[in-house]
Amino acid sequence: MISLNRELIEHIISNSVNDDLLRGQFGLEKENVRVDEEGKLALTPHPKAFGSKTENPYIQTDFSESQIEMITPTFSSIEETYHFLEALQDIVSLELIEQGEYLWPSSNPPMLPKETEIPIAKMDDPIADEYRHELADKYGRKRQLLSGIHYNFSFDEKLLRKLYDLQNGLETYKEFKDGLYFRVARNLLRYRWLLIYLTGASPVFDKTYIERCVSLGQSEDNISYYFPNMNSLRNSVCGYRNAKPYAVSYHSVNDYVHDLTELIHTNELLSVKEFYSPVRIKTAKGIDPLQELLEDGVAYLELRFLDLNPLHKVGISKETMQFIHLFILLMLLKVDEPFEKEDQQLANLNHDQLIMNSIDAFHKDQENCIPMKNVAIRCMDEMRVMVELLFPKAQEFLDILDGEKQKILNADLSFSSIVKSQIQTSSYREYHLDKAKEYAQESARTGYRFAGFEDLELSTQLLLKAAVKRGIRFTLMDREENFLLLSQGNHQEYVKQATKTSLDSYSTVLIMENKIITKAVLSQHGIRVPSGEAFHSLDEAISSYDTYSGKSIVIKPKSTNFGLGITIFNREFSKDDMLRAFEMAFTHDKTVLLEEFVTGREYRFLVMGDEVVGILHRVPANVVGDGIHTIEQLVHHKNKDPLRGRGYKTPLEKIQLGEAEEMFLKNHSMKWNDIPQPGEVVYLRENSNISTGGDSIDFTDDIPFSYKQLAIQAAKAARATFCGVDMMIENIQEEASDINYSIIEINFNPAIHIHCYPYIGKNRLANEKILDLLFG
Amino acid sequence: MISLNRELIEHIISNSVNDDLLRGQFGLEKENVRVDEEGKLALTPHPKAFGSKTENPYIQTDFSESQIEMITPTFSSIEETYHFLEALQDIVSLELIEQGEYLWPSSNPPMLPKETEIPIAKMDDPIADEYRHELADKYGRKRQLLSGIHYNFSFDEKLLRKLYDLQNGLETYKEFKDGLYFRVARNLLRYRWLLIYLTGASPVFDKTYIERCVSLGQSEDNISYYFPNMNSLRNSVCGYRNAKPYAVSYHSVNDYVHDLTELIHTNELLSVKEFYSPVRIKTAKGIDPLQELLEDGVAYLELRFLDLNPLHKVGISKETMQFIHLFILLMLLKVDEPFEKEDQQLANLNHDQLIMNSIDAFHKDQENCIPMKNVAIRCMDEMRVMVELLFPKAQEFLDILDGEKQKILNADLSFSSIVKSQIQTSSYREYHLDKAKEYAQESARTGYRFAGFEDLELSTQLLLKAAVKRGIRFTLMDREENFLLLSQGNHQEYVKQATKTSLDSYSTVLIMENKIITKAVLSQHGIRVPSGEAFHSLDEAISSYDTYSGKSIVIKPKSTNFGLGITIFNREFSKDDMLRAFEMAFTHDKTVLLEEFVTGREYRFLVMGDEVVGILHRVPANVVGDGIHTIEQLVHHKNKDPLRGRGYKTPLEKIQLGEAEEMFLKNHSMKWNDIPQPGEVVYLRENSNISTGGDSIDFTDDIPFSYKQLAIQAAKAARATFCGVDMMIENIQEEASDINYSIIEINFNPAIHIHCYPYIGKNRLANEKILDLLFG
Repeated sequence: MISLNRELIEHIISNSVNDDLLRGQFGLEKENVRVDEEGKLALTPHPKAFGSKTENPYIQTDFSESQIEMITPTFSSIEETYHFLEALQDIVSLELIEQGEYLWPSSNPPMLPKETEIPIAKMDDPIADEYRHELADKYGRKRQLLSGIHYNFSFDEKLLRKLYDLQNGLETYKEFKDGLYFRVARNLLRYRWLLIYLTGASPVFDKTYIERCVSLGQSEDNISYYFPNMNSLRNSVCGYRNAKPYAVSYHSVNDYVHDLTELIHTNELLSVKEFYSPVRIKTAKGIDPLQELLEDGVAYLELRFLDLNPLHKVGISKETMQFIHLFILLMLLKVDEPFEKEDQQLANLNHDQLIMNSIDAFHKDQENCIPMKNVAIRCMDEMRVMVELLFPKAQEFLDILDGEKQKILNADLSFSSIVKSQIQTSSYREYHLDKAKEYAQESARTGYRFAGFEDLELSTQLLLKAAVKRGIRFTLMDREENFLLLSQGNHQEYVKQATKTSLDSYSTVLIMENKIITKAVLSQHGIRVPSGEAFHSLDEAISSYDTYSGKSIVIKPKSTNFGLGITIFNREFSKDDMLRAFEMAFTHDKTVLLEEFVTGREYRFLVMGDEVVGILHRVPANVVGDGIHTIEQLVHHKNKDPLRGRGYKTPLEKIQLGEAEEMFLKNHSMKWNDIPQPGEVVYLRENSNISTGGDSIDFTDDIPFSYKQLAIQAAKAARATFCGVDMMIENIQEEASDINYSIIEINFNPAIHIHCYPYIGKNRLANEKILDLLFG
Repeated sequence: MISLNRELIEHIISNSVNDDLLRGQFGLEKENVRVDEEGKLALTPHPKAFGSKTENPYIQTDFSESQIEMITPTFSSIEETYHFLEALQDIVSLELIEQGEYLWPSSNPPMLPKETEIPIAKMDDPIADEYRHELADKYGRKRQLLSGIHYNFSFDEKLLRKLYDLQNGLETYKEFKDGLYFRVARNLLRYRWLLIYLTGASPVFDKTYIERCVSLGQSEDNISYYFPNMNSLRNSVCGYRNAKPYAVSYHSVNDYVHDLTELIHTNELLSVKEFYSPVRIKTAKGIDPLQELLEDGVAYLELRFLDLNPLHKVGISKETMQFIHLFILLMLLKVDEPFEKEDQQLANLNHDQLIMNSIDAFHKDQENCIPMKNVAIRCMDEMRVMVELLFPKAQEFLDILDGEKQKILNADLSFSSIVKSQIQTSSYREYHLDKAKEYAQESARTGYRFAGFEDLELSTQLLLKAAVKRGIRFTLMDREENFLLLSQGNHQEYVKQATKTSLDSYSTVLIMENKIITKAVLSQHGIRVPSGEAFHSLDEAISSYDTYSGKSIVIKPKSTNFGLGITIFNREFSKDDMLRAFEMAFTHDKTVLLEEFVTGREYRFLVMGDEVVGILHRVPANVVGDGIHTIEQLVHHKNKDPLRGRGYKTPLEKIQLGEAEEMFLKNHSMKWNDIPQPGEVVYLRENSNISTGGDSIDFTDDIPFSYKQLAIQAAKAARATFCGVDMMIENIQEEASDINYSIIEINFNPAIHIHCYPYIGKNRLANEKILDLLFG
């Protein structure tokens, strides 16, 4: 019977290493099969957008070409790991939607074609290809399509060092560490039946699954099959297992390595990889695992028996991850029990008992045979004691334990029961396809954000999504500053705020930063800019009155970029008016510019390399009437768009019902309760800033090429790779001439999210373009 | 007799274009012969440092390989033009000093070898070479070595337009403009004798000059020869003239072109260039002058008869330039007089009369023959009236006119009289060699500055000097921001503050800007940086007390660069001390760094490309005792160094006798009146900043290569082309190891002037290196 090692726990408490126990490294690997609109296995190739199948560290193919594997990096918190998996799910789903495909949310396969039609992943590597074909022959392709989650965990290195120092034995650190991991592995293997009960979520399977399994199963509709009480097909005899239950010693690294070597030498196994132990002992590099084990020891443990949870978008919840972590700690802190070959056989027996009879099975060890439920409750109670002793403030842990205990007390609350009962109202196929589409829609709705990195600028989140998609690794060098290191092989790129890169030189940025120089450079290249002058003193400035009186002009400080100190005169103005405008401008800069006021509409051209990637026009916050709703109601309705949020966390901002808006309506003889005519556009602001609820409208395909050429020429003149060219255009129906446009600014570090998620228009994939240029 | 065109003047006044008359474009060209330490003609080749002889727009060779020509761009003010010539003089002199050569300050040649040993300039172009040999045969090489100043002038285009509009005649604008320039040219030719009198400064010549001239001359010492009353050898029959006085019509462009074409067709002249008129009519491009005259008309006038003034460092003073400008205006505003061939002959006669008899000659025109002095005085009086009418507030003009009038009234005050009388106390050779060396020393003393651009940062001034030296053109894009456009042929480079260039990428700058990222990048590349941590909250920060208590640490805000908010603990500190340090640091930044306090001395490595260009160590303000003077006296003495100034206009700052210094002395039990022992070093400040009088000491040759390699590796890690690597080194006697150094910062935009003009050490020519990398 499980019981805590109280001595060890007291030792830990008295040496204050409790909190170190919570540290560790977490990683997830998850497989999902791709399906088409009808829920059939997708027979298309692995999407090219995910780059190299072998070199993308985040998104790969597994056994089948149709089976996507998502791999998170390791993080020091469950939170980060979970969110990264969510981000991967979002990224993959968004790409698949484009080709009408979805991620199948069950561990059990979707509607399958004939065995031979299931495509085996085509790798570039002939050895990898051969290995997959050997597996196909040995286990069958359908079985290989069973998908799941691998949970990777390592203890914090500092914790291990401290425990080693406290223990003060004769072992080397490596021996100590290996011993500890082997102890945890043994215990996990022994008690895995409990985790399988709590996480199993694949009780039903499709009639196209392996014939022998289908023939053994039951079905009400002849489509959806099941075995009574079975909660995880994947962990059953119909699941993916070695042909025989190979027993290897978990006593020590040497014994373990010895036994596995023997199995390979006798051709029982193709390689170490084929030893499908529910808990794998892993090394750091994983290239020659047995050799590495002998030399460097255990790096982490891999739990391989977790089902995809169709109740959850990403297949696993944070709470489940947290529970597994606590369970691992229990395995560390319980009194050790022997785990010889007989014990291993008993563990396998208990596993199978659980699969056949669920929590109502009997648990056997070398001495007793008692109801599994009792053992399970005992486990949960010991965990509770463990948590109370070590983490007395962590109420959230107790809540999680309570939730899991309820599933033991009431089997209807288990994932598999819920899934099974929901399937009964439709069918295995329909239920999972609906879930697949629902989750894909959720990913699409928040397509602009990188889960877990919502504190970054949207442009940076989008760049990261594109990077991860094609398998470019990233490091956040300075999170607050949106400063990334992107790397692919030996190619490294430092990027700040998405478009500050090595592709623009410092002098280019300085040219763009300085309005006078920008204008001079553009003029020199024959590009039209607003005419004007620079003044260094008020006297000099005001003496220009006679020259400009009667013209439309703008007065602005040389280098501010936030609209401060700017005055526009587009009707008659007095010398006094002009004086005041100059005085204000001079409070912001030593140099003040006077420019002709250019008419037309302003468009932002996003130039990247030799290309105009997007063109955007911004419109002040507005609603369009329907003859029924009030302005206020229309605003509320428009604000429901998931692209609209508050505080720049979304591509658009909600329209406010504030004083400024009310004043603007009043100035135009309107109020919140007015009901505009159908089609009538009611503006709520003078300025077109996105930050005050303005709309961004994509014009990329609506503007003649002649203007695009000008924008590209302007970028070339400043030698810019990435820039936002702000152009005034009189009439986009006409081709550009010498007089009907003017470039008013070139901006470095242009926002890209506005071109990816405009209010109206297409996603211009500016994030992808950045990577094409940086790594292309 | 000269008299003002009162009608024209009133017309100008009533139309308020007086001030426009003062506008115009000014340019100077100046030749100087190079001499060696002994004042002999230098027979070395034109220095390679000046780049291509034909493509350097500022510094070229003239006829002889030993004759340097300096050419200013045109500027809209005399001030700017003058200063640019001074800058050219400085740049050339500094380069020549390096090879023991000087600029000969007289129009007359120095000690010459035999005719055939005088090197003719070797151009890359065979046509140019042949032309020079033809001239040598025709005029003799010695004569060709006569040097002078050409004064180029054009009226302001707006002025000409206004005058054209006012006049409202039947002429085209081109006809009007050409007519005006020809009128001024005619008058200048007619009255040139007066300018020759006022600017002539070559009364004495060396016995090695052309034998026939020497034999005609007089001498007291058989070395220095002269003709009585002659003030300008160059403008005499022994000077450089056409073989015959060719008369061409100055009536109109057509007549002028016709006559010159005739002279070339009849082989009297090799080309238009050989028409050595004292005043040349010039076109804009100057490639095919006659054709251009017909098509585009006159662009400017060139006055070619001005001597080098040995009394002035650059060969001409601002006042002389100003006077010539006023004289040109007089020539514009006087009543027109005919200038037919007879008048031209009379003008030539008056020229020769002036040369032979000085101002005591008689002036002849077609009607009268009166004392030249009377005509001169009349000219001066009319100029005075002109100035009083047009520029009533310009007292400085009246002062200049008064000065020149004195020279007419008293010939002893003329340049040539002064030069001649000074030569009489030594010899022609000695006098001019002394001047040459004196002026070179003056250039050397202020070698760090670019005359006329002292408002720019010293680093930028030095870069400009290097650019001009090798013939790279520059434009000040934004003077306040030290923003330049450098160009050579089609190659353009934008440069801000000397080291912000296209050679560094934006991401590189961003890496260097961020201390955390810099450290991460350096660490990744195996370079030692101070260990430490970053904290984002006070709680987090202070919880590190136990870890660091007892160690030497620095606490500092992440991104400030000015020493604000930094605390150093290099002895025991309490938790409260640490709390206060963190609190202060957090007022400057959201992120605060804690770093190990690194011991050793700090060195600044200036890395450019693959090279450490300079290494500098800074020492706090100090004086070294001599056993005689007080500390105060020693400070005054040290402050006399021309490298020390105030307000960052010099490479070093003066040591202050302020409160901070007094307090520092007091803390070390000293006061201003103390007399330190010989060799005793007395510090006056804690900090080693140059801005508070610190010394910069060059260690470039004193630091083992292993440290230089580390600095270069650090730059490469950040991918920097230009950067300043700050390294702490325990002991520069030892090679770098893994533990005896630490890189504490990498800075973009490193100052270069400190490496060019250190307190102790060599000029490391960092400015040249920038250009090597940008244009190499």
